[in-house]
Amino acid sequence: MSMDWTSRYSLRTRRVRSSEIRELLKITEQPGVISFAGGLPSPDAFPLQRFEEACHKVIAEQSAHSLQYGRTEGYEPLRDWIAANMSRYGVHARLDNVMITSGAQQALDLIGKLFIDRGDRVLVEAPTYLGALQAFNAYGAEYFSVPIDSEGIRTDLVEEPLRSNPKFMYLLPNFQNPAGTTLSEGRRHELVLLADKYGVPIIEDDPYGQLRYEGEHIPPLIVIDRENLRRDSGYAIGNVIYLGTFSKTIAPGLRLGWIVAPPDVIAKLVQLKQSTDLHTSTFTQHVAYEVVRDGFLEQHVKVIRNLYRERRDVMLEALKEFFPPEVKWTHPQGGLFLWVTLPQSLDSRQILEAAVAQSVVFVPGNSFYAIPGKMDHHMRLNFSNAAPELIREGIRRLGLAVGSQLLTTYA
Amino acid sequence: MSMDWTSRYSLRTRRVRSSEIRELLKITEQPGVISFAGGLPSPDAFPLQRFEEACHKVIAEQSAHSLQYGRTEGYEPLRDWIAANMSRYGVHARLDNVMITSGAQQALDLIGKLFIDRGDRVLVEAPTYLGALQAFNAYGAEYFSVPIDSEGIRTDLVEEPLRSNPKFMYLLPNFQNPAGTTLSEGRRHELVLLADKYGVPIIEDDPYGQLRYEGEHIPPLIVIDRENLRRDSGYAIGNVIYLGTFSKTIAPGLRLGWIVAPPDVIAKLVQLKQSTDLHTSTFTQHVAYEVVRDGFLEQHVKVIRNLYRERRDVMLEALKEFFPPEVKWTHPQGGLFLWVTLPQSLDSRQILEAAVAQSVVFVPGNSFYAIPGKMDHHMRLNFSNAAPELIREGIRRLGLAVGSQLLTTYA
Repeated sequence: MSMDWTSRYSLRTRRVRSSEIRELLKITEQPGVISFAGGLPSPDAFPLQRFEEACHKVIAEQSAHSLQYGRTEGYEPLRDWIAANMSRYGVHARLDNVMITSGAQQALDLIGKLFIDRGDRVLVEAPTYLGALQAFNAYGAEYFSVPIDSEGIRTDLVEEPLRSNPKFMYLLPNFQNPAGTTLSEGRRHELVLLADKYGVPIIEDDPYGQLRYEGEHIPPLIVIDRENLRRDSGYAIGNVIYLGTFSKTIAPGLRLGWIVAPPDVIAKLVQLKQSTDLHTSTFTQHVAYEVVRDGFLEQHVKVIRNLYRERRDVMLEALKEFFPPEVKWTHPQGGLFLWVTLPQSLDSRQILEAAVAQSVVFVPGNSFYAIPGKMDHHMRLNFSNAAPELIREGIRRLGLAVGSQLLTTYA
Repeated sequence: MSMDWTSRYSLRTRRVRSSEIRELLKITEQPGVISFAGGLPSPDAFPLQRFEEACHKVIAEQSAHSLQYGRTEGYEPLRDWIAANMSRYGVHARLDNVMITSGAQQALDLIGKLFIDRGDRVLVEAPTYLGALQAFNAYGAEYFSVPIDSEGIRTDLVEEPLRSNPKFMYLLPNFQNPAGTTLSEGRRHELVLLADKYGVPIIEDDPYGQLRYEGEHIPPLIVIDRENLRRDSGYAIGNVIYLGTFSKTIAPGLRLGWIVAPPDVIAKLVQLKQSTDLHTSTFTQHVAYEVVRDGFLEQHVKVIRNLYRERRDVMLEALKEFFPPEVKWTHPQGGLFLWVTLPQSLDSRQILEAAVAQSVVFVPGNSFYAIPGKMDHHMRLNFSNAAPELIREGIRRLGLAVGSQLLTTYA
C-alpha cells in the first residue's frame, strides 16, 4: 500500500507553511529581475581576501580541530572574542554567557524549543520578523501581537498582554525587520521594568545593531536591564536573552550567530542544541575567528556602513521621485529594510503581481504579522543587495506598478 | 526580582539531559588520556590538500554564491552528486528526493520535529544511537525498544509493537552504533514487509555504510523496499527515509548530511528546516562538492577503509590478549565501534571509574537504551580515532580495569 505520510505528521507542524519570501526568491533568480525582496547582504561586502587567508591558515595549522567534531557551545576563542567584543557595547558577557548557533535563525529555533509548548503565548511586535514566527509556529505558539509606531513597540499596549503571562517577549529593537524602525531609549527603559514586574523574559534579536548609518547608538535592552535593575553580578544574568549574528557583518553563507544569556539558560540551550545538530561547523567557526580577530571586523563594518548608507539614500531619493504622494515610508537609521505604507485601499499582494510584470519584487506586508489580516497595504523593501543604479531603476518600475494600481482603485 | 527561568521551560524539554558522552569528552581532552569514547574519525583521514584546493576555488570563483544565503534544500550540484552517487548502491534518487542537513544529527531532529508530538511512540533498537534518542526526546517521544542480536534487530519481536502503530521505526542497519552489528539481508526483507503491512515508515540511518572492511555489501532497506514492493516510479517514493552523512567520509567539522525521502516528505522537511536554520552553510556545501566530485570520494573512502580496518584488527587482537576470558565482544564488519559484553555481575559505570584512573575512557552501555536498566554490563569502544599503538596500550589498561573489578566481585 502507499504510505499516508501526512496523517503521521505531528500536530505542531501541520500549520507550518512555506513562506512567501521563499517562493519569491525563486522569481528573483530569473535574469533581469531587480529584487528588494530578500534580506541579502551585498556580495561586495564579503571580505574575500581575508577569507582566503583565514581558510589557508585554518587548514594548514588547525586541521585536526577545525575539521573534527567540536564542543556544542562553540569554538572557545570565538566565544571569547564575542564576549569581549560585546563589552564594547556595554554588554558584560563572559565565556559561559555565550553559545554559538548556526545563524541567528537557529537561536530562534532553540528559544522556541526551550520555552514553547503547543498553545503557549508569545508577545511579538506587529509587524515582526517572519523567520521568528516560523520558528515559534513549529512548536505550536500562539501570539499577542502588539503594534509598533515610529518609536517601536507601543509600550502603552504591552502591559495588558503581560498580565496573561506570555512565555516571553520577542523584540527587534534596532532597525527592525521589516519596518526599519528603532525602539526609543525611553521605551527600552519601560520594557525592561515591565519584564521585571511581570517576570516575563525578553528575547532581544539584534542582527543589524552594528549597521547604524546615522543618529546615536542606543544601549541594548540587555544593558539597560543590568544597569536599571542593579544586578549585583558583573555578568549577563538578568531577564534578557540577546541574539547576535555574523550574517550581516561577515557573510550569511557561514551560518554563524550567537546567544548571550545567563549561564544556566546557556547550559540548557547547549543540551537542546546537542540533540539538534551536535554543534555548528567547527570549520566555519575557525574561519570566522581568523576573519574577525585583531580588529578586522571593526574596520570592515565601517566599509559596510558606507556601502549600505549610500544605497539607503539612493532608495529614499528614488521613492521621493517615483512614488505617488499618497504613499509613505520609514526613514531607517540603519539595517537593511524600509517599510512602505500604501493607501488603505490598496492590497500589496496585488501590487506585487503588477511589480513582477515589471521584473521587480518586494515582500508584501502580510507575511510579517503573527495574526495576519485579510489584506495589507505595506511593502518591505530591502536596500542592501542591489547596486545603486538598479535600486533607482527598481523603484522607478515599482512606482509605475503602484501608480497603475492607484488608478485602478480610483477608476 | 530574579527570573525563574526553569519554570518557563517547555514540558517537552524538561527531561532532556546532557549526555554522559558529552561529559566524557571533557576528560578525553586531558593529556595522556586514551579515548575509545567518542565516535571521532581519525584526523589522518581528512583530505587536507583537497580541502585547501577546494576552499581556494570556492572563494576565487564562487564567492557571490558560496558566502551568500542559499536555498533551504541545499546546493543543487551537491544534491545532484548525492543522488547520482547513491544510485551506485541501488538507491534511485533524483534532485527532489534529496535535502542537505547540518550533519545527520539535524536530520534526526527534523524527523523528530516532523513526526513526534509529546507522548508519541517510536520503535528503536536496544541498544541504539544515543543522539537519536536525544533528538526524539526533545519532542517528547516514548519508545518501543526491541532487542538486537548478532543479526541486528529481533524481527520476531517487532510485529507486536507495530500493532500499536508507532510513528516510525528507527534503524541503523550497517555496523550499528553502538553494537557494531549488521542487520542481515533476511531480516531486512522481513522489516520492509512489516513496515508496509502496518503502514509504519522506516527511518534508515546509515552513517557508516561505506565503511565496510570485510564481507559482502547488503542492500539498504530503501532499495529492498523499492524492489520488493515493485514501486512503479523509478524514484524514492516508498516507506523508507534514508539518512546519510559526509562526517565519516570527509570530515565531521563541516556538519554535512542528507535525507533521501519521497518528494512530498522532502518538501515538508524543507519547510521545517527553513524555520530551524534557514539552510546549511552554503560555504561548506560548496567546499564539500569541490572535494567529493570527479571520483575523489570513492578513492578516498578506500584509504579510510584501510586505515580503520587496521585499527579494528589491532583492537580485536588486543582484546583477545588483554581481556579476561569471561568477557565477549562483537566483530564488526565495518563502522567505528565494537560492543563489549561483560559478566552480568559487573556494572560498566564502575569499570569506567577504574578506567579513568588508568587514563582510558569508553562509553558505558547504559547511555544507549531508550528504556535504561538500573545497571548495564556493556561498553562501547571506538577504534577509529586512536593510533594503533595507543589502541593496544588503551586496551591493556582497560583489561586491567576490568580484571580488577572482576576480582572485587569474586572476593
